[in-house]
Amino acid sequence: MKRYNERSAAELAAEKTRVLEEFESLKAKKLALDMSRGKPGKAQLDLVSGILTVLDGPADCVCDGIDARNYGNLAGLPAARRLFAELLGCKPEQCFVGGSASLQLMYDLIAKAYTHGLRHSVRPWSREETIKWLCPAPGYDRHFKISESFGMELITVPMTADGPDMDLVEQLVQDPDVRGIWCVPKYSNPDGIIYSDETVRRLAALRPAAPDFALMWDNAYCIHEFEGDFVPFADILSLCAQAGNADMVYEFASTSKITLPGAGVSVMAASEDNQAYLQKLIGIQIISFDKVNQLRHVRFLQDKAHTLALMQRHAEILRPKFRCVLDTLEREIAPLGLAGWQKPKGGYFVSVNTLPGLAKRTLALCRELGVTMTAAGATFPYGVDPNDSNIRIAPTLPPVEELETAMQVFCTCLKLAALEKMI
Amino acid sequence: MKRYNERSAAELAAEKTRVLEEFESLKAKKLALDMSRGKPGKAQLDLVSGILTVLDGPADCVCDGIDARNYGNLAGLPAARRLFAELLGCKPEQCFVGGSASLQLMYDLIAKAYTHGLRHSVRPWSREETIKWLCPAPGYDRHFKISESFGMELITVPMTADGPDMDLVEQLVQDPDVRGIWCVPKYSNPDGIIYSDETVRRLAALRPAAPDFALMWDNAYCIHEFEGDFVPFADILSLCAQAGNADMVYEFASTSKITLPGAGVSVMAASEDNQAYLQKLIGIQIISFDKVNQLRHVRFLQDKAHTLALMQRHAEILRPKFRCVLDTLEREIAPLGLAGWQKPKGGYFVSVNTLPGLAKRTLALCRELGVTMTAAGATFPYGVDPNDSNIRIAPTLPPVEELETAMQVFCTCLKLAALEKMI
Repeated sequence: MKRYNERSAAELAAEKTRVLEEFESLKAKKLALDMSRGKPGKAQLDLVSGILTVLDGPADCVCDGIDARNYGNLAGLPAARRLFAELLGCKPEQCFVGGSASLQLMYDLIAKAYTHGLRHSVRPWSREETIKWLCPAPGYDRHFKISESFGMELITVPMTADGPDMDLVEQLVQDPDVRGIWCVPKYSNPDGIIYSDETVRRLAALRPAAPDFALMWDNAYCIHEFEGDFVPFADILSLCAQAGNADMVYEFASTSKITLPGAGVSVMAASEDNQAYLQKLIGIQIISFDKVNQLRHVRFLQDKAHTLALMQRHAEILRPKFRCVLDTLEREIAPLGLAGWQKPKGGYFVSVNTLPGLAKRTLALCRELGVTMTAAGATFPYGVDPNDSNIRIAPTLPPVEELETAMQVFCTCLKLAALEKMI
Repeated sequence: MKRYNERSAAELAAEKTRVLEEFESLKAKKLALDMSRGKPGKAQLDLVSGILTVLDGPADCVCDGIDARNYGNLAGLPAARRLFAELLGCKPEQCFVGGSASLQLMYDLIAKAYTHGLRHSVRPWSREETIKWLCPAPGYDRHFKISESFGMELITVPMTADGPDMDLVEQLVQDPDVRGIWCVPKYSNPDGIIYSDETVRRLAALRPAAPDFALMWDNAYCIHEFEGDFVPFADILSLCAQAGNADMVYEFASTSKITLPGAGVSVMAASEDNQAYLQKLIGIQIISFDKVNQLRHVRFLQDKAHTLALMQRHAEILRPKFRCVLDTLEREIAPLGLAGWQKPKGGYFVSVNTLPGLAKRTLALCRELGVTMTAAGATFPYGVDPNDSNIRIAPTLPPVEELETAMQVFCTCLKLAALEKMI
C-alpha cells in the first residue's frame, strides 16, 4: 500500500471513489454509536455487582467504631482514607475522601482559591488581575473547562512522550501570574503517556514565582493498566515534600473506573498542613460526604492487592477493545501516512494525531455515519486545536463488535477527509 | 412552687444549696452525653436498613432506560426528580437532585454567586464592595457560617411566632446590597416555628432592590412531623412565580432525616430558567452525582404516601424524646420563670430562651457534668447572641433514658446559673 502523499492524482481519484463507496455503504447501516466519553462498558459495571449489597444491615455499617450511616467525619471514613493511602502510596492523614466525583474536588479547590485563597495565597484569586494556568495539551477537556470557567488565561504546554515539555514549564512558572498546572501523570488523557521519572522529579522540584502555585495531579488512571502488570508510580506528595514543596501538590483519584462511574468514591491527597487549611473551609460546605458508600468500597475492594486483581478483570474486558482500535489504525491508517498515535498500556483513550487540518472534517463525517466522538479541539485549551489534528478515541463503552464497525467508520472518514484535501 | 424572682434572699440561698447538691450528685455520675447536633438516633437509622440492599443486581440499576451505574444525567435520575417534585409540590424539571448533602448545594450556589454571579447578577459578587445578608435569628448556625465564610455582612432579623419579622425584611430588602435571606420555613431551626401563610406570601412577593436577591428556602423539615399528621405546606416556587419572582427562590431539601444522614440524597428546586443557568455552571464541576444512591431512594421511598408512612415511624421514635424535653421544662423550669420556649410539632430541636445572660453559663455548667449542647450563641450571626439567652436542645440522638438524665442536668444547670446571678 502506498502512502497517499506518494500517489498520483489518478491513483488518489480512484481511491476516493473507492472510499466514497465504503462511506455510502456504512451510511446505509444507519449506525448510532457513542464513543465521545471515557465511559466503562456494561460488562465492567456488571463485574462489581457485589458492591451493591456488600452492606447488609446495621452491624455492617460500623467501622472503627464509627456508624457510617450518621453525620460526621468530614475527611472521610478512616478505613477509606487508609485504602486510598495504600493505593496512592501516601499517608491516610493526607487523604480527604469525598463524594462520587474527583472532578468536584478539583473544581472546589479552584473555587476556594478564588473565594478564599489557598494556604499560601496572598489574597483570594478573585482579587487578582490575572491568573494564568499551564495546560499540557492535548489534555483533559474538563480540566481546561474548569480553568476557562473561572476566567483564567490558559497557556498551552506541548506534551512530549515523557509528559509536559519541562523546559517550557520551568520557564513559565517564573511568571508570578502562573498559578498552576493540570497533570494526568499516568496514562495521560488522552495520549496514554506515563510521565517519565525525570519529568515527575522536575515537576516536584519546580520553583514557581507564585507562593500558591498548585500542581494539580489528577491520578485518574493510577492502577488502570489494560496491558501487562500494574506499573508502580512515585508518590508525588513525598517527592514534593523532599523538594521543599510539600504544600504545592494536590493529588486526585477516584474509583469511577474501578467500581461504578456514577457511584464511586473520590479522594484528594495533600500535605497535612493543606488538609488542615482546606478542611476548615470544606467544613463550612458539608458535614460529611457519603460514608456508607465509602464503607461499601472498603468492604468490596479490601486492599491494594485485592483491588489490583479486580483491575486485571477490567483489563480482560478492555484489552480487546484497545487492541481493536490500535490494530485497525495500524492496518488501515499507518501505511497511508495520515496520522500518528501512542500505543498506551493503560488509561481510557487512544489519541490520534492526523495530518494538519483533518480532525474536524473527519469527525463531521463520522457524525454523518452515526458515530459520535469527542469534539475536535476538545483536548486543547479553549477547545481550539491549532493544527486541527488531535482526535480522542474512547473505545471503552461499546462492545467489541460495535467498536469494529466504529473503527471502520473512523478510518473511512479519515481517509475521505484526507482525499478531499488532496484532490 | 414560687418563681425565683418572687423569692426572698433566704429562700434563694436555701434553693442554691439544694441545687448545688443536685449538681454534685449528677457530677458523680461522670456522664458523657452529646446533644450538640440534630443527629438521628440509632433506632431511626435501623428503620431504613432496607435501603442498603434494595438494589440487588445489574437489572435493578436501570430506571427509565438509564443505567444509574454509569456517568451522565447531571440533574439527577428522572425518577428521583419526580419523587422530590411530589414531596415538595413542584415540577420535576425544577428539581436538581444532588449528592448526600443539601448544605453543599446551598454553599455551592453562594460560591457560584461569588465566582460567576447568579442569573440576574450584574457581576459576580466577588466584585461587589459589600454583600449584606438577612439572618432570621435564632437560626441555623451552618447557614450563618456560610455567609460569614464569604465575608458577607450579616443582618439579624428577629424571629416571631409567625416567622421572620416581615415588616423589617420588607424594609431591609430596599437596600441593593442586601442579596438574600436564609429561611427554614417549616419547623424552623431551632424554634420549630412554621412560617404563617401570610409570612410565606409576603416573602414570595418581596420587591428587593437587588435584581439577584436570593430567597434561600431550606425546607429541611418539609415532612418531619413528630406530633400529629403531615401538615401541608405551600409550594414556594409557585408562589414566587405568581408574584413575578420566579427566579428569586432556591428551595433545598434532603433525605438526611428520612433515610440516612450520612448517605441521603439532596435536592435544589428552582425555576426552569435558573436550572438552565445553574446547570451550565454545575456541569463544569461534576459529570453527575451518585445516581445509584438516588435510585436506592426511589425504590425504597417509592412515593409521597409511602414516604409519609415512614415518617410516622420516625415520629414514633422521636415523639417520646421531644415530650421528655418539653415535659421536663414544663415541670422544672416553667414554674420558676427562668425561660420560655415554643412547643414544636416537627423538626429536630427545642429552642429555649432563658432570662438574659444565662445561656453561656448554663452550657458551661452542663459541660462540667459531661453533657455537650450546641454552643451558646451558635444560633445567631457571628455566634453572638446579644441577650446570651438562646439554647438549642437537640434531643434526637440519645435514647430516652439518657435524655431524661441530660434534661435533669440541663434544668439543674439552668437553675444554678440563675441562682449564681441572683445571689
